Amino acid sequence: MAKIVTIREVRRFIIQSLRAAGGRDAQCEDLADVLVAADVRGHYSHGLNRLEMYCEDYQRGTSDKDASPVTEKETAATALVNGNNCLGATVGKYCMNLAIQKSKEIGVGVVTAKGSNHFGIAGFYGLMAKEAGLVGISLTNTSPLQVPTRGKVCTLGTNPISVIAPALGDDYFALDMATSAVAIGKVEVQRRKGEELPAGWGCDVNGIEAKDATDVIVDGGLFPLGGPEISGGYKGYGLALMVEMFVGILSGAHWGPHIRKWQAPNETRTADLGQFFMALNPAVFGEGFSERLQLLMDYHRALEPIAGVDSVLVPGDPERSHETLCRDSGGIPYHEALIRDMGIFAEKIKVDPMETLD
Amino acid sequence: MAKIVTIREVRRFIIQSLRAAGGRDAQCEDLADVLVAADVRGHYSHGLNRLEMYCEDYQRGTSDKDASPVTEKETAATALVNGNNCLGATVGKYCMNLAIQKSKEIGVGVVTAKGSNHFGIAGFYGLMAKEAGLVGISLTNTSPLQVPTRGKVCTLGTNPISVIAPALGDDYFALDMATSAVAIGKVEVQRRKGEELPAGWGCDVNGIEAKDATDVIVDGGLFPLGGPEISGGYKGYGLALMVEMFVGILSGAHWGPHIRKWQAPNETRTADLGQFFMALNPAVFGEGFSERLQLLMDYHRALEPIAGVDSVLVPGDPERSHETLCRDSGGIPYHEALIRDMGIFAEKIKVDPMETLD
Repeated sequence: MAKIVTIREVRRFIIQSLRAAGGRDAQCEDLADVLVAADVRGHYSHGLNRLEMYCEDYQRGTSDKDASPVTEKETAATALVNGNNCLGATVGKYCMNLAIQKSKEIGVGVVTAKGSNHFGIAGFYGLMAKEAGLVGISLTNTSPLQVPTRGKVCTLGTNPISVIAPALGDDYFALDMATSAVAIGKVEVQRRKGEELPAGWGCDVNGIEAKDATDVIVDGGLFPLGGPEISGGYKGYGLALMVEMFVGILSGAHWGPHIRKWQAPNETRTADLGQFFMALNPAVFGEGFSERLQLLMDYHRALEPIAGVDSVLVPGDPERSHETLCRDSGGIPYHEALIRDMGIFAEKIKVDPMETLD
Repeated sequence: MAKIVTIREVRRFIIQSLRAAGGRDAQCEDLADVLVAADVRGHYSHGLNRLEMYCEDYQRGTSDKDASPVTEKETAATALVNGNNCLGATVGKYCMNLAIQKSKEIGVGVVTAKGSNHFGIAGFYGLMAKEAGLVGISLTNTSPLQVPTRGKVCTLGTNPISVIAPALGDDYFALDMATSAVAIGKVEVQRRKGEELPAGWGCDVNGIEAKDATDVIVDGGLFPLGGPEISGGYKGYGLALMVEMFVGILSGAHWGPHIRKWQAPNETRTADLGQFFMALNPAVFGEGFSERLQLLMDYHRALEPIAGVDSVLVPGDPERSHETLCRDSGGIPYHEALIRDMGIFAEKIKVDPMETLD
């Protein structure tokens, strides 16, 4: 059963929780924007579900509630930013705003960040560019969960790629994908259901394709997009390394196997993640970009689909449907288990629990 | 049995063949550089093997032997180029040189081209940037061979992504991959061998995963990287659309299903391909880029590999091995069937056939 919470109430709860963990106004509001956007777009794994993790980072002092990002180096089209260990949402918004400004002046802005933290859904920052009529790209590294082709151990994060671009009216193209075959959360769901893993999701401790989700979770890892080598997994591995090259390597942040483990209890090290943001002004290239993009998208949506599905989609369509669902519901539908867990967390951190609509 | 031909002799043969088909000096030399690089790097499908196709484009007048690319629009960091239907190699070199120059001045250069043709291996242009100490990106659209997730017909090309970056000494990172699960050539090889297709390569006329290569070739198509939807194919489809957005859509060239068919006999339409070139100067970001990139690559090369393989590789390693093979052999080893076919072609186009080393 789902329970509806208004966006206003979710924001209130996130901001008060972060403040209770020691946060200051600006960073708390930045993170609330990103977490709410994740849930509204249906990416529940990256929204309210992770609030406790960010609060713990404040409480342990592994992220810095008093800091602000600083531009260390700059050209008219580029910048290197030191996130100074702020929340990733604050670093991301700072960097993408810089990229947008440069892109408006000179056609393109490329900004890399070091000293950052988990920035939520990668798509959030591209959406900022899209709102300004620009194409937006964001990339980040993350804690190791992905096993390179021919390897046996996790050396790379799920290293997502997001590219967002404005079509006509409210429509837009929104790619936001991990370079691993699937997210670890999907493997956990298979384990809970007691079902075999589909082909190409992950491998065991010997680097061999796993049928059992537990083998992937305990001492194996996620396969890169494409699965094993024979079906093209070396390309997903190449993309994950490419992301690492644009983020940790280009900025001088931590990279690959040197990034702290995902949700390790009592972690005291900072994340020092690397991120990449780019805004591109389509007006400096061919005329009529958004019109053509709309044609490309609508051409695909109108294709005859295979048996058993309603329609062919384009990147961003599932998220758009979920946004509509939230609008029609008057808020965000959450699984009651999450509402219950957030109630327990509210008590622990001494904040009023979220009110649901029913 | 392979026969060795010196690089000098391969170049001579390519240039004379293109001239015999009506070509002028500059375009012929540009294409020779790209085709030779493909063969030296072991990408035989994109080298001498395609010479006849380019000659036919000249003979039919579907590419323009007398034209030159022109910059139509420019900022300090960006440019829109009209390839004016020159050979893709000429358009690509022109655009990447422009991107390199801008990147040296301002940190980044982004150039899109319309009115272009097949430009050979995408990696060639990134290698130009790498030689200049920069990170190079190139993207192109191609004739439709790829079926979108949930669809039944080919609407997108293999739309490759190439990203190349300088490490220390002669070492470098070189991703150069189609966004389809595999190249069509690999499916053709399975058909010739009479073997079943591995999981995730392609689909039949109903969009269902195919075991029989003929089903893919005749009226099906290649799956995007990731294979069917369940194993992540929607991400490969998203990447292929993203490439199309940066090339055909951004530049105003032909796009997706509107691009002429691959190797259609008696084609009279021009290709009008779209391409994207970017050069990024790592020196404007964190210090020590190449040192860190070397560490990232060497870390992966040193990993313990799974049973049955020699080592974990990084993108570019297989190509580097093939370059070494060519250097050690005193030339490029070609399959004798290709030497025979080129002999027949030489007679047809009235050019001296290639001399082999033995």
